Amino acid sequence: MAKRDTPELKISASVMEAEFKRILLKYDFAEEKAATLANIYTVNSLEGVYTHGVNRFAKFIKYVIDGYIKPHEEAERVHSAGVLEQWNGKLGPGPLNALVCTDRAIEIAEEHGMGCVAIGNTNHWMRGGTYGWRASKKGFAFVGWTNTIKNMPAWGGIDAKLGNNPLVIAIPYEKEAIVLDMAMSQFSYGALDLHVLRNQQLPVPGGYDKDGNLTKDPAAIRESERTLPIGYWKGSGLSLLLDLLATILSAGSPVFEISKQNVENNLSQVFIAINLSKLKNSSGIPALLQRIMDDYHASIPDGNAKVLYPGERVVKVREENLKNGIPVIQKVWDEIIAL
Amino acid sequence: MAKRDTPELKISASVMEAEFKRILLKYDFAEEKAATLANIYTVNSLEGVYTHGVNRFAKFIKYVIDGYIKPHEEAERVHSAGVLEQWNGKLGPGPLNALVCTDRAIEIAEEHGMGCVAIGNTNHWMRGGTYGWRASKKGFAFVGWTNTIKNMPAWGGIDAKLGNNPLVIAIPYEKEAIVLDMAMSQFSYGALDLHVLRNQQLPVPGGYDKDGNLTKDPAAIRESERTLPIGYWKGSGLSLLLDLLATILSAGSPVFEISKQNVENNLSQVFIAINLSKLKNSSGIPALLQRIMDDYHASIPDGNAKVLYPGERVVKVREENLKNGIPVIQKVWDEIIAL
Repeated sequence: MAKRDTPELKISASVMEAEFKRILLKYDFAEEKAATLANIYTVNSLEGVYTHGVNRFAKFIKYVIDGYIKPHEEAERVHSAGVLEQWNGKLGPGPLNALVCTDRAIEIAEEHGMGCVAIGNTNHWMRGGTYGWRASKKGFAFVGWTNTIKNMPAWGGIDAKLGNNPLVIAIPYEKEAIVLDMAMSQFSYGALDLHVLRNQQLPVPGGYDKDGNLTKDPAAIRESERTLPIGYWKGSGLSLLLDLLATILSAGSPVFEISKQNVENNLSQVFIAINLSKLKNSSGIPALLQRIMDDYHASIPDGNAKVLYPGERVVKVREENLKNGIPVIQKVWDEIIAL
Repeated sequence: MAKRDTPELKISASVMEAEFKRILLKYDFAEEKAATLANIYTVNSLEGVYTHGVNRFAKFIKYVIDGYIKPHEEAERVHSAGVLEQWNGKLGPGPLNALVCTDRAIEIAEEHGMGCVAIGNTNHWMRGGTYGWRASKKGFAFVGWTNTIKNMPAWGGIDAKLGNNPLVIAIPYEKEAIVLDMAMSQFSYGALDLHVLRNQQLPVPGGYDKDGNLTKDPAAIRESERTLPIGYWKGSGLSLLLDLLATILSAGSPVFEISKQNVENNLSQVFIAINLSKLKNSSGIPALLQRIMDDYHASIPDGNAKVLYPGERVVKVREENLKNGIPVIQKVWDEIIAL
């Protein structure tokens, strides 16, 4: 995770969670909210999503200090249209708002088979997979997405007009879940920066250089700011449609309005839960999934590594980090304990 | 559309539609079904999607002759779970089944804000956009997808395990619609073949050669059968999750079971309609969309062409083909009129 000459610590999950909670309480979060947020940031780190866990925690606190995230605000339903609800996040903490929306979508789905909650005026939800895992653990399939600040040109364009608008799809599987959590850009700016730091080329083309050539050079893409949508015109289209739907459904802000400020808040998100237990074939779903995944895992690997499904690594990383501690860059941890 | 030395005709939409209808009646379709199918194949051609219009019609009839498509079977609801319904396509004509599902999803959404119909045991729906346009013209947003026969390796694998599982997202816009209709492979086998025929390289890498190198050479990809998912590991994951969801929701067949036979039928599909008129901000949606799309269209183009949204070309192509006739490869038309 860190480049070779960046000192790294191993922090136990319990120490990390306690530290996050201490800081959140200091910055005026109520006891229960501090506990929930501390847990989310810790679990995200424990499961290997450091970029939206420990590495992002100090920025979260900075947003609180700067007033972009409001510790006491809570998401509020503003409109019901059957199984579809529109909520206002009131700039409360993104992960807490997202949990409320996930749970509410599940509640609607419990009764009606499917539930959709769209929220505007909220903050970054951190790791989208969090909500997919949550729904899956309760036995529900999940589809959700968020918009972001603009960070990617539309296909055929040079200047950033689209967000990378992560999409999450999750299905309960065995005692865990299959969780796809993917942004619409091939690489995030965070990933580009990490490759620059490590002096590494990208594994596949990630954008264009200043002359308009497709390149694996992360520094050249940083310079041009022309990141690549997944599948070129396809990811560009999907990003646009996800933004349009999130904005319309939530009565919130689209990417282009969010981007008028320099901070990424005021986001629009969608949470859809599907009640698998109400399906005709519900008792046969685990065996069906097993058959599909057995065939998937029987892929002839290109190299030595087994072909994995989205989220499959999480269980192993979680176990390793629980046993050995969570790897944290010294500088990141120093910044946190100084808060 | 055709290579330079392939003779091409221009057929008027009305002549094409009448010809399709004549043939469908001959192959035992009832009057109304023949009319609907003839219209769908004609409109797909009129709007430029020849691969799932006129170019595919003879294959549709062959599937009818071979018994894979059953002209008299109609989709039937087998289970209701609130706003989520499970249907059996009974191997009826794919486009007719898909229309029934689209309209039923809309009906549910009219009452409950959102409706989801999943169908198993159906046939190829041809152009997914058809159903997105249909829902949009009635004022509904639409999300739908289908699985397919296996035609793409999972990421990290060499042998085909995944379908390219097209995903459609549509939103009413102006008097038309914004319609994303995208398969999970960067290029279809049809597109690869067309580039081989024309002796053209692909505009971006579309798969691997036999030595495992990413390539723009369509013949090399044809040889290795290692087509590329959009966004590499991302499109691979999305394809898997779309198959899992379609299969579970419809109680139908997954890609790997469909692929045990050499024909592509017995598919699983999902149709979700969203009732925009029930939203809090419904009257403001057109103006909101206009603001977003104005900003989108203000992209600085990479070249001379204006940046377009998904589906934007359709209106122009439709007008041109209405005026000048639909371009059809002579050989394709000869095969049709001989039916």
